[in-house]
Amino acid sequence: MIKVGIVGGTGYTGVELLRILANHPQVKVEVITSRSEEGIAVADMFPNLRGHFDLAFTVPDVERLAQCDVVFFATPHGVAMSLAPELIARGVKVIDLGADFRIKDVAVWEDWYKMSHTCPDLVAQAVYGLPEVNREAIASAQLIACAGCYPTATQLGFLPLLEAGLVDHRRLIADCKSGVSGAGRGASVGSLLCESSESFKAYGVAGHRHLPEIRQGLSLAAGKPVGLTFVPHLTPMIRGIHATLYATLKDPVDQGLQTLFAERYAHEPFVDVMPAGSHPETRSVKGSNVCRISVHRPQNDDTVVVLSVIDNLVKGASGQAVQIMNLMFERPENEGLQQVALMP
Amino acid sequence: MIKVGIVGGTGYTGVELLRILANHPQVKVEVITSRSEEGIAVADMFPNLRGHFDLAFTVPDVERLAQCDVVFFATPHGVAMSLAPELIARGVKVIDLGADFRIKDVAVWEDWYKMSHTCPDLVAQAVYGLPEVNREAIASAQLIACAGCYPTATQLGFLPLLEAGLVDHRRLIADCKSGVSGAGRGASVGSLLCESSESFKAYGVAGHRHLPEIRQGLSLAAGKPVGLTFVPHLTPMIRGIHATLYATLKDPVDQGLQTLFAERYAHEPFVDVMPAGSHPETRSVKGSNVCRISVHRPQNDDTVVVLSVIDNLVKGASGQAVQIMNLMFERPENEGLQQVALMP
Amino acid sequence: MIKVGIVGGTGYTGVELLRILANHPQVKVEVITSRSEEGIAVADMFPNLRGHFDLAFTVPDVERLAQCDVVFFATPHGVAMSLAPELIARGVKVIDLGADFRIKDVAVWEDWYKMSHTCPDLVAQAVYGLPEVNREAIASAQLIACAGCYPTATQLGFLPLLEAGLVDHRRLIADCKSGVSGAGRGASVGSLLCESSESFKAYGVAGHRHLPEIRQGLSLAAGKPVGLTFVPHLTPMIRGIHATLYATLKDPVDQGLQTLFAERYAHEPFVDVMPAGSHPETRSVKGSNVCRISVHRPQNDDTVVVLSVIDNLVKGASGQAVQIMNLMFERPENEGLQQVALMP
Amino acid sequence: MIKVGIVGGTGYTGVELLRILANHPQVKVEVITSRSEEGIAVADMFPNLRGHFDLAFTVPDVERLAQCDVVFFATPHGVAMSLAPELIARGVKVIDLGADFRIKDVAVWEDWYKMSHTCPDLVAQAVYGLPEVNREAIASAQLIACAGCYPTATQLGFLPLLEAGLVDHRRLIADCKSGVSGAGRGASVGSLLCESSESFKAYGVAGHRHLPEIRQGLSLAAGKPVGLTFVPHLTPMIRGIHATLYATLKDPVDQGLQTLFAERYAHEPFVDVMPAGSHPETRSVKGSNVCRISVHRPQNDDTVVVLSVIDNLVKGASGQAVQIMNLMFERPENEGLQQVALMP
Repeated sequence: MIKVGIVGGTGYTGVELLRILANHPQVKVEVITSRSEEGIAVADMFPNLRGHFDLAFTVPDVERLAQCDVVFFATPHGVAMSLAPELIARGVKVIDLGADFRIKDVAVWEDWYKMSHTCPDLVAQAVYGLPEVNREAIASAQLIACAGCYPTATQLGFLPLLEAGLVDHRRLIADCKSGVSGAGRGASVGSLLCESSESFKAYGVAGHRHLPEIRQGLSLAAGKPVGLTFVPHLTPMIRGIHATLYATLKDPVDQGLQTLFAERYAHEPFVDVMPAGSHPETRSVKGSNVCRISVHRPQNDDTVVVLSVIDNLVKGASGQAVQIMNLMFERPENEGLQQVALMP
Repeated sequence: MIKVGIVGGTGYTGVELLRILANHPQVKVEVITSRSEEGIAVADMFPNLRGHFDLAFTVPDVERLAQCDVVFFATPHGVAMSLAPELIARGVKVIDLGADFRIKDVAVWEDWYKMSHTCPDLVAQAVYGLPEVNREAIASAQLIACAGCYPTATQLGFLPLLEAGLVDHRRLIADCKSGVSGAGRGASVGSLLCESSESFKAYGVAGHRHLPEIRQGLSLAAGKPVGLTFVPHLTPMIRGIHATLYATLKDPVDQGLQTLFAERYAHEPFVDVMPAGSHPETRSVKGSNVCRISVHRPQNDDTVVVLSVIDNLVKGASGQAVQIMNLMFERPENEGLQQVALMP
Repeated sequence: MIKVGIVGGTGYTGVELLRILANHPQVKVEVITSRSEEGIAVADMFPNLRGHFDLAFTVPDVERLAQCDVVFFATPHGVAMSLAPELIARGVKVIDLGADFRIKDVAVWEDWYKMSHTCPDLVAQAVYGLPEVNREAIASAQLIACAGCYPTATQLGFLPLLEAGLVDHRRLIADCKSGVSGAGRGASVGSLLCESSESFKAYGVAGHRHLPEIRQGLSLAAGKPVGLTFVPHLTPMIRGIHATLYATLKDPVDQGLQTLFAERYAHEPFVDVMPAGSHPETRSVKGSNVCRISVHRPQNDDTVVVLSVIDNLVKGASGQAVQIMNLMFERPENEGLQQVALMP
Repeated sequence: MIKVGIVGGTGYTGVELLRILANHPQVKVEVITSRSEEGIAVADMFPNLRGHFDLAFTVPDVERLAQCDVVFFATPHGVAMSLAPELIARGVKVIDLGADFRIKDVAVWEDWYKMSHTCPDLVAQAVYGLPEVNREAIASAQLIACAGCYPTATQLGFLPLLEAGLVDHRRLIADCKSGVSGAGRGASVGSLLCESSESFKAYGVAGHRHLPEIRQGLSLAAGKPVGLTFVPHLTPMIRGIHATLYATLKDPVDQGLQTLFAERYAHEPFVDVMPAGSHPETRSVKGSNVCRISVHRPQNDDTVVVLSVIDNLVKGASGQAVQIMNLMFERPENEGLQQVALMP
């Protein structure tokens, strides 16, 4: 059994980790931490877990965490970098669902996250957690920086085009829509049902923290710095991200886009390239670890439109983290992740 | 492996059966029928099933259904009674998620369902599918009439009080709220998002088809005919039933309600009696087969208030049907049913 | 023009007052206060008001408020009683949308609101703001305690039955459902879209602050103390209250319920008794000051079921307050209140 | 008083016309037609209209319609062109909310709408109903083809940039999101709450009927044929359209975008250019005739992002039609259209 610790168990990615791990045959959750809820049983706080976990929140304690085989950080940025170094030093594997180790250029990270990084050396060591890009590196890594939710949906949609060099890398547009759970479980007026339901809006148009992360990933795929406009939107639903991606074909007569995508992801257990002409719905992945993608070329013009959907809490966070754990511990990659999306 | 057939696979209870059975280790779905969708792959119609089923809808064919070990009817009333007799004659087990065999008094059934019953003899033979009431009879039955959604939530909430004879059986009130999926997948104006979201209303106050079913079950539990007022309401959400139940204590000084409920359901795998003072949320059972119940006595007055929540498509329909199948085939009762509710 | 002041303009009842008063031909809003938002233009905080108000929030200042003809308090309990006395002394009319002056028995108020009342004398002077009950007293009052949202829907539904003495006053049940806006604009986890959408739950079953208010009103109507069980529920929508009310007929043969209700409210501009057999939807009053009611007698049994719907922010709060202002200033009662509900 | 007739009163744009006209001081609705609901009172079908209209649906009758001053067609394409010619011949003004007269190139119209046009001559005579573009022509027109919902939001957002010639007209992208009411009141599975809530998807990527309409309007503004990629999305809410528009600046150093937009719409009663950096929410226009716009230049790059929101049933349909009627009858342009958006 894999002994698991979770730091920051009271947010949405924390409870989602518990939901998924509850049905993982090879995992035992040993520790779950929360400063604010110390002593509270997780099943009292999250009644959906009643009968699945007999575990209470404890304050973070490196001694106890160090006895786990792997520790997940489901925390705001800044927390993982404060605890990871000692866990790493003691040989514990660390999977950070937060942003601390995602950006290789520490100066860029500090600029966007408005704090100084306390362990830049680990940034270099960390492996970016997107199995469809670097499965092998993940399998042998000790520290993982899981891809963010928008970055997962956006990169999986753009990768085939950029790797094949088919589109103008200087002018990529990612118009992304996220459910409100992406804003987390913190009490904020903007996330109230009365403020965010029956409405739709863009936010962070001037600049969102996922922009540098997406740009870094796409530039690696393109082999050169890409130009990207990223506009996130708040959608009146709980879960789901829909990325609508626009790129300009260099060769307007190219016809093989469907095949390109199908072949790129032919062996990926969690990327589903849908038939030509499909419009993936976010609900088709609700609660599941799947990313569904379709590629279009409206009016046979030279603009390619890629539609990519994920559940921001699963493939965009906790499910991807479990997929990564499976790779790190040589388990079947889909173990504990075969749940069918809830539809309706 | 249990060879399963499903008649009427295009409605919400049909696709929910597929979602649940996809992860049942001992089940193989052999046949799924739909007159309207003949030849369509189930995964093309319900993309959440992509990668889980390689199966297409066929027109109902008794020959093919007769080769299954069990056939589920996820159909409107009137369908099961037309096909069940021959399947029963051939030794196939039949689990009807519809209403054809729920009411023992055929005249009452015909009065509420506005059609004549074509096999009243089978009504007598059919076992009412509510494991918490008649688990043994279910295990040895060949024909099951699964309890309806409102009837499941309402009976599980009232049973302890009526079996113990603690309340006035002549004046029971069930104020029930259901998500829109209870209205099914048929295209009707009333179920449009624009008609049913951001609004709340009662319906069928004059009389709802679940009234005689609930009354029959409660009268059996009370040992005498009960008086029941049942008011269903349409709630702006997809899944979930919340039953708010009112009864009058005969003995106002009685104090043991919490214990009564806890003991009644102590050994039930899918009934969760919550701590005193709890308010179960429907989302805490979304996608799971659990019924969560709490019992209250406001102001220490003589009115008992019971709160009972289920997912109408799971414990109220398809999950309960699989729980019943497990009993009929001597499988662990919770096999394939351990999914954790999706929250948030 | 009526010079209006609003204390507490940043909550939902405050912005709703502004929305309604923006189209009131005889009103000029002179002052709107908020300690937290001092100096912010109301139109910057609430963009729906852009172009309608050129007004900024100021800190509460009795001098400025005293120059208004009427001051609305759209504040949590405890605020109005701290400022009202001086305004009353200076001849300003005060309309409190909060709870400070609703309960005549100060000891009961202090018990439920957990604070001591600072001006019990004004409680005696205050007129309860429910025009359908005491229109004349309102017209000549200087201090109004507006009825709460649940109390408005519940009292309007029960009044005809109690005033006529047709039902058992000892066992009344009010099963009420409210949209999330009833919880206010404060940032709380429970009101997040991710916590309150796609779910339904009861709350405050042990005792809700509107219970004594409703009980007081119904006891006045019945001429004797009533017994009431009140169970509020949180519904996944922004606006609307649906009260489902249960009472037992003393004379089971009584047939004139529809006529009784129609006559009771025949001359009420904002109470719509719907045709027999109707099921009012909350959306049919969304944004309007109307209360729609239907009365049922299921199965011709002796239980009466009354369905009553309002918009909690309009007839349940700000609209009712404007209706009351019109009465106090001898304006047409429906002036500025003729907006049609938004449907869909 | 303006005598109004409405053809096709049972759809969402029809009931929305009634909601708006109910408070228009100079309008009397004389006739409202519906073949399916003949004889039904509008207030029985739409309870929000109870007390506002004493009018029943009748079958379309040219004689009766010809006695009106103006007839609105709130009908699917194909209906207006069958009745308009005779009404026009009799001197009645016609405002078509549908698509019959929007596309000047009849061949293009027939290609997209899959039917032959029965009065191409009237297409030439018809004035496109977008007051911000051709107010004067509207005032003197007899036949108006109201702009569609997506076309209104998209054109108002792009116009200042194209009229000023600041952007590359060959590569415009309109990523648009609409509430479900845009799909109309017809009973279709895709518009059920259970199918369209808690989900987000694109549709019609290969080609949507509003594409040629938008392209026609933008080409007129640019003075040359534009290249446009238009991707509509279905959003889980009732009302609202959010257009996110992308264009490439020819001159990357241009800085005056905010001023450009502010001046272009300085005298428009229903276009609100928001402060720099704003993110308009669709709810800020819910139920109102306003279009709110903000313009951004992320990272000071050469991609301009325009955000434009409307209520698809008001400024996108019925409100715009009333605004146009006011212009045609020399009434104040905002008469009957000053309602404040419902927020929350």
